Amino acid sequence: MTEPDLLNEHRHDAEESSYELERSDVAAILDAVERGDQAALIARMEPLHAADIADLLEQISTSERRKLIHLYDREFDGEILSELDESIRDDVIATLRPEVLADAVRELESDDVVDLIEDMTEHQQDAILDVLEDSDRVAVEQSLTYPENSAGRLMQREVVMAPEHWNVGQAIDFLRGHESLPEQFYHIILVDPRLKPVGNVTLGKLMGSRRDVLLWELTEDVFRVIPAMQAEGEVAYAFNQYHLISAPVVDEDERLVGVITIDDAMIVLDEEHEEDILRLAGVGEGSLTDRVISTTKQRLPWLAVNLVTTIAASLVIAQFEVAISQIVALAVLMPIVASMGGNAGTQSLTVAVRAIATKDLTGSNVWRVIRREVLVGLINGLVFALIMGVVGLLWFGSPALGYIIATAMVINMVVAGLAGTVIPILLDKLGVDPALASGAFVTTVTDVVGFFAFLGLAAAVLL
Amino acid sequence: MTEPDLLNEHRHDAEESSYELERSDVAAILDAVERGDQAALIARMEPLHAADIADLLEQISTSERRKLIHLYDREFDGEILSELDESIRDDVIATLRPEVLADAVRELESDDVVDLIEDMTEHQQDAILDVLEDSDRVAVEQSLTYPENSAGRLMQREVVMAPEHWNVGQAIDFLRGHESLPEQFYHIILVDPRLKPVGNVTLGKLMGSRRDVLLWELTEDVFRVIPAMQAEGEVAYAFNQYHLISAPVVDEDERLVGVITIDDAMIVLDEEHEEDILRLAGVGEGSLTDRVISTTKQRLPWLAVNLVTTIAASLVIAQFEVAISQIVALAVLMPIVASMGGNAGTQSLTVAVRAIATKDLTGSNVWRVIRREVLVGLINGLVFALIMGVVGLLWFGSPALGYIIATAMVINMVVAGLAGTVIPILLDKLGVDPALASGAFVTTVTDVVGFFAFLGLAAAVLL
Repeated sequence: MTEPDLLNEHRHDAEESSYELERSDVAAILDAVERGDQAALIARMEPLHAADIADLLEQISTSERRKLIHLYDREFDGEILSELDESIRDDVIATLRPEVLADAVRELESDDVVDLIEDMTEHQQDAILDVLEDSDRVAVEQSLTYPENSAGRLMQREVVMAPEHWNVGQAIDFLRGHESLPEQFYHIILVDPRLKPVGNVTLGKLMGSRRDVLLWELTEDVFRVIPAMQAEGEVAYAFNQYHLISAPVVDEDERLVGVITIDDAMIVLDEEHEEDILRLAGVGEGSLTDRVISTTKQRLPWLAVNLVTTIAASLVIAQFEVAISQIVALAVLMPIVASMGGNAGTQSLTVAVRAIATKDLTGSNVWRVIRREVLVGLINGLVFALIMGVVGLLWFGSPALGYIIATAMVINMVVAGLAGTVIPILLDKLGVDPALASGAFVTTVTDVVGFFAFLGLAAAVLL
Repeated sequence: MTEPDLLNEHRHDAEESSYELERSDVAAILDAVERGDQAALIARMEPLHAADIADLLEQISTSERRKLIHLYDREFDGEILSELDESIRDDVIATLRPEVLADAVRELESDDVVDLIEDMTEHQQDAILDVLEDSDRVAVEQSLTYPENSAGRLMQREVVMAPEHWNVGQAIDFLRGHESLPEQFYHIILVDPRLKPVGNVTLGKLMGSRRDVLLWELTEDVFRVIPAMQAEGEVAYAFNQYHLISAPVVDEDERLVGVITIDDAMIVLDEEHEEDILRLAGVGEGSLTDRVISTTKQRLPWLAVNLVTTIAASLVIAQFEVAISQIVALAVLMPIVASMGGNAGTQSLTVAVRAIATKDLTGSNVWRVIRREVLVGLINGLVFALIMGVVGLLWFGSPALGYIIATAMVINMVVAGLAGTVIPILLDKLGVDPALASGAFVTTVTDVVGFFAFLGLAAAVLL
């Protein structure tokens, strides 16, 4: 396409300017802490956002963190607590003086308090709830009655609503006469006389319309109502799929009880992705700030599962000890067949797990996807069979060995495509998170099939 | 905590109510297509959001898709094009009648047109640009002058701004007198006389304040300005980290040129996560709707890399052919050492790759994280060394074999923790995406070290 020459200067790569905390800033802050210089510490921390301060506290050592909190004292903002990773939150709360903690918690919105205390013991929860004002405490307690990870926990209870028959002028007068509007709101929710939400009007549309226009003429095309009991992952999916900015939340009787905004949905989306990645790698719920012992404990079960599956594969090898003792080349080549199958299986598996999570793999296309994965396994299997056949021949001078490894490779990569797709689909049907469990099953299959096909063919043909 | 009894009914798990397309709906739509019943098709499609229609088109077969599009004809909405996966977009565009395509494209906002055509050839781009009105075409062409994946491509060019010295009354009068406000906007951006953005005021605050209040008294606490050349991944990070709803975009002279809203940032965040997951699994840029041949091509390079690394491991085994021919148990047990190291390495690697992506792994904590991973590897290594030592002893009746596999296991899992952390950090320092390349390096290290430690010790001790 043609473009004005003067704009050509833009045509280089997008910049990777960074939001990362500068190492020099961290050093200066730690230096102030070391010297006990409160004024310098406060001055250095002042330009930082609460989320950046939370990151800083996560990145320094435990003793540095405690010293910093003692020195920072009354400056400690409630929002830092909301932003902190759970793994160090308890330690930070225990380090704060009770008065500072009380002030910090009182600054928070009720949904942030819920997020803060939902994983605490009842005793700890009560200690925090006691410092809240009555109205806030009731709001928090009501949110906690909804199940964890539900829309009811995620929503704000403050909503701006208007009767469906109002016009723009009435709505503007109502808003301008309102005592305390919520800090952040983007829509007016139209409700029927039974408080059932029937539409959304953006503030922008309201501002841009004549006073006598009826509100329902201005409602957004896309309008989704979220049940309070809906899982938060589904809520995030709806926001992402339908590009929602905010959505009303309703109880079982379809009455408006709250509102969820896109920023909350974005946080959930981010957490769900993170969980999926970590689960696929067998890391569970790990975080960078977990200590050695808890990290070891998180990873141990996954390694134990892997030990069992790899011993299963070894049992297959043990059946062919005679063949291996006569042709040692088999021991040299057998990991190649298993490893290629394992990799191909992981590829299919990851695509399937993601497609299930994004609802792209459904009853309508499941057979087409399985067929595709098997065909991809077959073609790649043929390519690498050819290569390995030649390598086997040149390396060990045995055409038979070349044929055998080539055949085993094709078999294992077809099985990998099949297992990598079918196993996560079956687990999902059984209600098990496929990201959590598929990996171990798929590599067991590819290990067992790989060793069995290669060593079995060799024993049959070469002995 | 105490809670009112009447609310106890909420206390069960969050519901997994689903946004997935119902198989029966898809069947009904395909049935209408098969019968050539346009009225039935349009009636069935009417309640669906463009994003759901795009999902539907992705899930059915190519021939069904083409028939559906022919029958749906003029009803085809431009937004469906924006929502479609790139892998089938070209086919859909080629299937649409030219008049229908022109109408569809004309309905789109300029940033959606940019997203639609940025990966097309110049010839295809020109064909689309030709159907646009002059002002839209200029807007699209200007966006295309910014590099791909930059804030400049992501932003909308329509902004609502006000001089910094205005009061609430002036702003409200300006908005209410404005001819055409953007469809979606949430803030008024305050600018200085040089058009440099100096603050954000939410429409909600504006509505809730007296007419004589100055706008700058109402500005949001958190205000971030995005350079137009910034990479979109960084933009998404800023929105997620600082909970932004919208942010002004500026050129090199710090003048306001556009605005990015959180819904665009959410899409980018989602894409970046997806990319990370697929890259970690060696799948590259794959999508579920890619055809067999392109999927095969995407996955082949990764399998080729794996073949090279696994042959490297086999070369290590080949050095110990004499030992294996004398003690076949070595061939049976050696995959266990390599596999446990590979899994432990993948665990460390995934945590490190994610921590780098979320800017949680920095100069301030890199040594602490490496130390932690090595210690975790050591402890888990000792646990599994004990187990495998006993298994080795019981299975093969040789205490020496038990000692050897235990020692090799500890060595390999410590190395796995070290390699799994150091390799992604080094790749990141070299400007290579660690998600893309770390896996192959780490498993090569754990395979080679695992086989070498186990077989080497065995050769030294047992022969």
